[in-house]
Amino acid sequence: MKLKDIGEFGFIEKISRGCLIRPDNIIKAIGDDAAAFYTDSGLISLVTTDLLVERVHFMRDATTGFNLGYKSMAVNLSDIAAMGGTAKEAFVSVAIPEDCSTGFLEDVYRGIKDLASEFNVNILGGDTTLSIVDLIINIAVTGSVRKEELLLRNAAQRGDIIFSTGFLGDSRAGLHLILNNIPADSKELKELFNSHILPRPFLREGRFLAAQNGAHAAIDVSDGLSSDIGHIAKESNVGVRLLTEKIPVSENLVYFCNRFDFNPAEFALAGGEDYTLLCTISPDKADEVARKYLKTFNNPLYPIGKITDPGKMEIINSSGRAKKFKPEGWDHFK
Amino acid sequence: MKLKDIGEFGFIEKISRGCLIRPDNIIKAIGDDAAAFYTDSGLISLVTTDLLVERVHFMRDATTGFNLGYKSMAVNLSDIAAMGGTAKEAFVSVAIPEDCSTGFLEDVYRGIKDLASEFNVNILGGDTTLSIVDLIINIAVTGSVRKEELLLRNAAQRGDIIFSTGFLGDSRAGLHLILNNIPADSKELKELFNSHILPRPFLREGRFLAAQNGAHAAIDVSDGLSSDIGHIAKESNVGVRLLTEKIPVSENLVYFCNRFDFNPAEFALAGGEDYTLLCTISPDKADEVARKYLKTFNNPLYPIGKITDPGKMEIINSSGRAKKFKPEGWDHFK
Repeated sequence: MKLKDIGEFGFIEKISRGCLIRPDNIIKAIGDDAAAFYTDSGLISLVTTDLLVERVHFMRDATTGFNLGYKSMAVNLSDIAAMGGTAKEAFVSVAIPEDCSTGFLEDVYRGIKDLASEFNVNILGGDTTLSIVDLIINIAVTGSVRKEELLLRNAAQRGDIIFSTGFLGDSRAGLHLILNNIPADSKELKELFNSHILPRPFLREGRFLAAQNGAHAAIDVSDGLSSDIGHIAKESNVGVRLLTEKIPVSENLVYFCNRFDFNPAEFALAGGEDYTLLCTISPDKADEVARKYLKTFNNPLYPIGKITDPGKMEIINSSGRAKKFKPEGWDHFK
Repeated sequence: MKLKDIGEFGFIEKISRGCLIRPDNIIKAIGDDAAAFYTDSGLISLVTTDLLVERVHFMRDATTGFNLGYKSMAVNLSDIAAMGGTAKEAFVSVAIPEDCSTGFLEDVYRGIKDLASEFNVNILGGDTTLSIVDLIINIAVTGSVRKEELLLRNAAQRGDIIFSTGFLGDSRAGLHLILNNIPADSKELKELFNSHILPRPFLREGRFLAAQNGAHAAIDVSDGLSSDIGHIAKESNVGVRLLTEKIPVSENLVYFCNRFDFNPAEFALAGGEDYTLLCTISPDKADEVARKYLKTFNNPLYPIGKITDPGKMEIINSSGRAKKFKPEGWDHFK
């Protein structure tokens, strides 16, 4: 079915179903000039937004609508996670080229709603319009957090231990498969492919970290470890010392690097789109937080280095030699 | 200068200047994973979002960056106005094709900031990314309103007088000039052109109406009078009787229609992008509100018809004959 057969209002009616899953405190969802709702009294409000463009962020003929919608939502939820917040309401704008079927679009919304409902997020509004060539998706997500629990980039302190909530580099390996048309012919490659296509937002983990004594700064790894830890260093006016050996690399990535002759550490350092959280924690609390984290999530919190004096960005290799590193990650314009 | 010369982070630094004009209660503006701020305690939060796409909503070579930015912001502020709210924070996402100069983009942000600062709105975040062909702008705006003052589409009551805060049809005439390459060779045509290019959001007027006893439903005229009053009729389960003679038409539009042989009433009824507010007011309060409005804004509040029994959508012409009308306005997909 084509969009012109059902029209804009018919389409909005179709996609509106299942958008309001947490009606408490919502005065008006989709269907008026703006959404109207109460935010959590006394809490800080969070807002993040991400714009995904066909042929820049995805190839329409190389993804399913579901995966595309899922990832569009995931990258936003990840930003709320990196602030230590709870995600609340989402606003989805789409600009749709004429050759895009309603079936594909309904799949996009299925992907969005699937992840939204997992994290109890309403879809409260948005915009639907036409595009000439490329499918465009912009999602804005609101959230909330207690003031004492807000995790900012500028709060890292000298001596803090730097942790990652998950493996680094898998997503870049998955992207490599896609860009080079390499079939995911093994369990390992399939999982790398999924790391790139269906990243999971570390929302529960972000909330957990935010609530711990001694947790200072956080960021999600969207541009790449070296780039994103660089943001923390710059904003907090501190330095960083990473330990190559400690950077968590999956067995899948090791398999991939062996097979295609890459260096796992490089993938982990200059990857991107991992959407794990980096969090810096006071050294006297770090062990305790890591222990509680393991117990809570049945997954380790990986210590990958330390916050040091301003101006120093170094990585220590397995033989103990220090090398300077520069933030190397994604710049859309370069 | 090209974007690749300054990179994504250089560009963000450039456009971030002048974005935070109301720092009270803002914990974190541009520069972290999400913006963090306090909303007005006890008030209802509003969120609206609009996506503008090159070659659908604007022609890049036929507009200035300033005008494009201004309008992108205006259409969002208009939605907050239609809820009776005060606009608070804005989030600007842009996807930029390589052939777009930084100069043009800085102009876009100048236009956005110009209108934002007029209405005391912060730009607290957004996203910047690449596009292959078309320039894309998505703005999301938050606002707030007291519960008793929220103006919804579904609150019109039988007997209410329907008002418009301004002329209808001018914007469509301006669009006609642009689409047909007709030079704006007179004061009248210039003003029609401006009505389309630089629509003003009726935020102060929306706030005024929201605070009046007897003000029930409101909407902004984005799709066209017949379509937008149709939304109120549908959502409120009421009918509508409009009076052709009462629909406010500017002298500019009369001039335009004489010169190019159009019917002003048709332009007013099936126009679009006027961004005036339609508001329905209880008949026993209507005169008083209109008097106060005139005194406050030195502009009349135009009564254009009445809310009637469900199912009836009619317009009465100058000789008193009733004609049914259907919502006729913009559908992006048809």
